[in-house]
Amino acid sequence: MTHIPLGPGAEFDLIRRFYPVDAAPGRAVRIADAVRVGAGDDCAIVRGEGIALSVDMSVEGVHFLREWLQPEEIGYRAAAAALSDLAAVGATPIGVLASLAIDESEAEIAPRIIDGVRAAAAGVRAVLLGGDMSRTDGPMVVDIVVVGNALRPLLRRGAREGDSLWVTGELGAAAAAVGAWRAGRTPEAAARLAFALPTPRVAEAIWLATRGAIDALIDISDGLASDVEHIAAASDVRIIIDAASVPIHPTVHAHTADYDHALRLALTGGEDYELCFAAPPGAVEHIAASFLDTFDVALTCVGTVHAGSGVRLRVGGTVIDMPYAGHDHFTSRSQ
Amino acid sequence: MTHIPLGPGAEFDLIRRFYPVDAAPGRAVRIADAVRVGAGDDCAIVRGEGIALSVDMSVEGVHFLREWLQPEEIGYRAAAAALSDLAAVGATPIGVLASLAIDESEAEIAPRIIDGVRAAAAGVRAVLLGGDMSRTDGPMVVDIVVVGNALRPLLRRGAREGDSLWVTGELGAAAAAVGAWRAGRTPEAAARLAFALPTPRVAEAIWLATRGAIDALIDISDGLASDVEHIAAASDVRIIIDAASVPIHPTVHAHTADYDHALRLALTGGEDYELCFAAPPGAVEHIAASFLDTFDVALTCVGTVHAGSGVRLRVGGTVIDMPYAGHDHFTSRSQ
Repeated sequence: MTHIPLGPGAEFDLIRRFYPVDAAPGRAVRIADAVRVGAGDDCAIVRGEGIALSVDMSVEGVHFLREWLQPEEIGYRAAAAALSDLAAVGATPIGVLASLAIDESEAEIAPRIIDGVRAAAAGVRAVLLGGDMSRTDGPMVVDIVVVGNALRPLLRRGAREGDSLWVTGELGAAAAAVGAWRAGRTPEAAARLAFALPTPRVAEAIWLATRGAIDALIDISDGLASDVEHIAAASDVRIIIDAASVPIHPTVHAHTADYDHALRLALTGGEDYELCFAAPPGAVEHIAASFLDTFDVALTCVGTVHAGSGVRLRVGGTVIDMPYAGHDHFTSRSQ
Repeated sequence: MTHIPLGPGAEFDLIRRFYPVDAAPGRAVRIADAVRVGAGDDCAIVRGEGIALSVDMSVEGVHFLREWLQPEEIGYRAAAAALSDLAAVGATPIGVLASLAIDESEAEIAPRIIDGVRAAAAGVRAVLLGGDMSRTDGPMVVDIVVVGNALRPLLRRGAREGDSLWVTGELGAAAAAVGAWRAGRTPEAAARLAFALPTPRVAEAIWLATRGAIDALIDISDGLASDVEHIAAASDVRIIIDAASVPIHPTVHAHTADYDHALRLALTGGEDYELCFAAPPGAVEHIAASFLDTFDVALTCVGTVHAGSGVRLRVGGTVIDMPYAGHDHFTSRSQ
């Protein structure tokens, strides 16, 4: 890890924020091992047999409203959402780069946003590797690049007929928070927390992969129904989700007394940043209790994998086409 | 390189644009060697001993106006500017990821912007590895992540007392184009071209490094005077730029008859994306003609490296503080 002095200038005072301050002594070896050059030159330099890269853009007015979040939460949430893509390939995070466009009159909150990015990175033992900063006359934009090591990446393809479909945690809480805000109400604390400070399931994905539980993996960013489409398409299989099994977050039921509405939020709300994976038959049942003990996060079987294509919903004894319109796709991401 | 089907949806039709269409047969081996997983999963996966990473954000109204550029040029220019950061560490490009925020009513130009990104990448034998897309209610934002191989990265530190300071090409043309537009005039064709379709000096940097010509390197994005400050600070040296040696682009003289104005544009205008490097004594003089033959780009000695700190300007026989206010730093970049 190198620390390179920058020339003078107000912008560079901001960019100095990108320098690592969280490189605790115990972590120095690991960081030095993967990071050859950190923030402060024209590029960061990392090394690895499988360097996983993804980018995730958060736009004010689309992904969040200023009134909903503290500046640190804007940065944390943007970074956690991007880091979830590392979890989704079973990668061990190395670092993040953060691009920020912000109105010049608000430049004073930029360091707070970056502090939030840094906190989310530190939560998965990653460091800030650099970034870019621009003024804008429009909405704030936070674009996060994540970098990790994925020697044996877990992809969306690999689901097979006979597999079961599992999810971590509970779904719909972030969507319930957005729904409350949009209705002019204050979200439940649990819903707000799920939206503002999501936890990328990095350690969970590696734990499951190590135990042979994952044939195909994705993170739930656009909503379970939509993201499972990607596993089905990449794996060339049909996936049937069992409506009654979908783990609806308790805060969703506090948000709406209508079960159909709650199910829709859990299936299509998006921004849960939980994992969804296809597992070989019998691979998960005997480790689910240990997973819960380790992470305090439940594993739930929500469906089955079949020959064919597309995603269907089992409601009672009937298998139907997915009845809900998808997430607003134009706001969502590839990698 | 994997090709993973995506689920249905309008956004995914756009994201399919991220898939490589330019993987010509002769390039397949090289691409497959560095790229383990391309666009279409949660992350791209690359490998290497020194993976160089940088991100560069272009914001409409700050870095460009819509009226100045075709959509393809917006993408090309954003990507070329980012790729210049790979040149600045002597990296061999592998790929780019492109994040695009655009008004929903203009979504139809998104593919044209991405085509421009792809063209700039192809120009340095890189591929599109993925990206993200969001709607926005504000100015268009194009954020480009570049990924390259830099086994022996060339950094900003390394300039030593007795070194000479060199630049590739000629400076100030992009600034002349912006100056013309801002004055309500049509830029000279050469100035417009320099702004719209800059050439990242990727091959040039590697050629020079191979010949032992580079002790410290940066690309000129904020303007020569400002970027040399970074070399001086990182190398802990003083650098004196010789005003009379600065290679002012001929189109700058067409733009302004005032020599001082022309010199200021060349020193501080920025967005030239030429290289600036400190070379050991005598290392460049004997290869400059061969460089010109190979790349049709001149090398010019513009200064000298001394003990001390900071950047000064030699005007006639006198060494003075840099007399020009710097580039708008809040719009410029770290990595």
